[in-house]
Amino acid sequence: MQIAHPYLLFLGDVPDQLAAKTAQGIVDWRREWCLGQLRLPGCQADCGIPDMTLDAAHAAGARTLVVGVVNAGGVLPDHWVQTIVTAIALGMDIATGLHQRLRDIPEIALAADQHGVSLFDVRHSTQKFATGKGTKRPGLRLLTVGTDCSVGKKYTSLALERGMRERGLNADFRATGQTGVFISGRGIAIDAVVADFIAGAAEWLSPANEPGHWDVVEGQGSLCHPSFAGVSLGLLHGSQPDAFVVCHEPTRTRMRNVETPIPDIAEIIDLTIAAGRLTNPDIRCVGLAINTKALDDDTAARTIADLGARYGLPACDPIRTGVDPIVDRIVEIFGK
Amino acid sequence: MQIAHPYLLFLGDVPDQLAAKTAQGIVDWRREWCLGQLRLPGCQADCGIPDMTLDAAHAAGARTLVVGVVNAGGVLPDHWVQTIVTAIALGMDIATGLHQRLRDIPEIALAADQHGVSLFDVRHSTQKFATGKGTKRPGLRLLTVGTDCSVGKKYTSLALERGMRERGLNADFRATGQTGVFISGRGIAIDAVVADFIAGAAEWLSPANEPGHWDVVEGQGSLCHPSFAGVSLGLLHGSQPDAFVVCHEPTRTRMRNVETPIPDIAEIIDLTIAAGRLTNPDIRCVGLAINTKALDDDTAARTIADLGARYGLPACDPIRTGVDPIVDRIVEIFGK
Repeated sequence: MQIAHPYLLFLGDVPDQLAAKTAQGIVDWRREWCLGQLRLPGCQADCGIPDMTLDAAHAAGARTLVVGVVNAGGVLPDHWVQTIVTAIALGMDIATGLHQRLRDIPEIALAADQHGVSLFDVRHSTQKFATGKGTKRPGLRLLTVGTDCSVGKKYTSLALERGMRERGLNADFRATGQTGVFISGRGIAIDAVVADFIAGAAEWLSPANEPGHWDVVEGQGSLCHPSFAGVSLGLLHGSQPDAFVVCHEPTRTRMRNVETPIPDIAEIIDLTIAAGRLTNPDIRCVGLAINTKALDDDTAARTIADLGARYGLPACDPIRTGVDPIVDRIVEIFGK
Repeated sequence: MQIAHPYLLFLGDVPDQLAAKTAQGIVDWRREWCLGQLRLPGCQADCGIPDMTLDAAHAAGARTLVVGVVNAGGVLPDHWVQTIVTAIALGMDIATGLHQRLRDIPEIALAADQHGVSLFDVRHSTQKFATGKGTKRPGLRLLTVGTDCSVGKKYTSLALERGMRERGLNADFRATGQTGVFISGRGIAIDAVVADFIAGAAEWLSPANEPGHWDVVEGQGSLCHPSFAGVSLGLLHGSQPDAFVVCHEPTRTRMRNVETPIPDIAEIIDLTIAAGRLTNPDIRCVGLAINTKALDDDTAARTIADLGARYGLPACDPIRTGVDPIVDRIVEIFGK
């Protein structure tokens, strides 16, 4: 699967900016892939790029209309269908992260067949995977892990890809969630894979590569999250990372949507090494990515310094301070 | 989901006994649910129960025709369809563990709709699950875990259910694989659940129960198996076991279908406790189930005694020696 760019981002008529989080993530990380945004009357989201009609986007060479929003129930509203069918008639592929499959909407399926375009339901995997084998592959891999869900693993992974490339390393972001897939044009929403194939899907995602090449794999969930730890473990085993970065939000006390307390960073490091050794005996932690969004400047700086000192690891906030200290450590250990 | 019994076991015309492993498991553990077996000409399997026609089974009150075989590709052969359609016309439900869904075969779907019978594709879950919550539920739970796949976790769980009931405990086997589902008439093939819902499915499988009631949950895979550890971890978190039994095959050196060495029993105990504490801080190991099928009597007895002494745990072979030592330990710790 490879979603072709440039994209036209379709925001529909969603009621707020949060509903367009996926589209915003694409703009943040792949501004150069985005020709513009298409909004229906009443749309309350704005990704800060030019509004564009289907015809204008087509004339400018748009390859894919990306439905970059989530809405209640994950269903495509009826009054969005005509826009999608028109885009198909102009030859654009369609990609969505909704629960409802594009092919289950008869007008869209028919139009896609007539015009020979591709429909990408990023949340549903049609890819067939083998079960994981656990055999060591050439190439280097880094995985972001978390003390919770939604602590900045995707952002950290993308910032590391950028920072490592700037340092001359050969690094590729590997997406495991829907926004990441749109941002990289490929990948898998690993939480939608059938349980038996999690590790196998992760192996497929970061295949054998040349020595010195880095796959920077977007982590999911947390080994300590009672809902999603199975996904996190399969992803860890399949990715067989040489290096991992712990992502942490220091003001949170309970894990997302459950009553479980946030684990200590040391606990996540120990668990990740204990479990990760199975497929890579040399796994090691190379840094802490601290999400300090909820803190003022002074507290943020102090928190980052404290945590770095406590665990003896490079610590930073990928948004506030950049990821240079972690890239330094990677170069120090693994060379360039 | 509840598969109604008595069953008529359909063996088709499979080429050997191994292909009828599922049917044999049902006969071994629920002989009283099985009226007979139905075999087509050329069938090379025999579960040792009376051969029976569809009409005779119907007259004897058969509620479900169970397709208790696996065959290459998991597809239902065309020449088996007529038997199934005839069973449906007699009012029987149909249950299979094949990859191919019964409803995807038009004659079967049509007949089922016409006659109002249920089709159970045990390998595919149509059940909707919530994500796991990790909240402690009343009732007691025991999980079988393994140093590998296919080491006897299902057999051990069923033997424990039987042994605990004989001792007057209120215990129910909870199936997580297809054969187990046929044996208990309910449950889920947990490896077919979408990754995000593994823990949630396990929570659904062993819901809140009265104090003193035991759910004996059939384990899957191994926390140390590079293909399936994610499934094992989600099942562990969702089952939140008070007690676990380690199942081990002492002659194996590599894990099934991969190059990974078999872990030490101590490693599995430590990993299970470290991870299981997240949803049950009181988790503890109550015994070792040693699969000594490959050993002669003397070596088997010595191996069981050695491993029991080495780990300070009751050890037994559920088939060769029964599970009494483990039930003793359960009663000693948790009372009756």
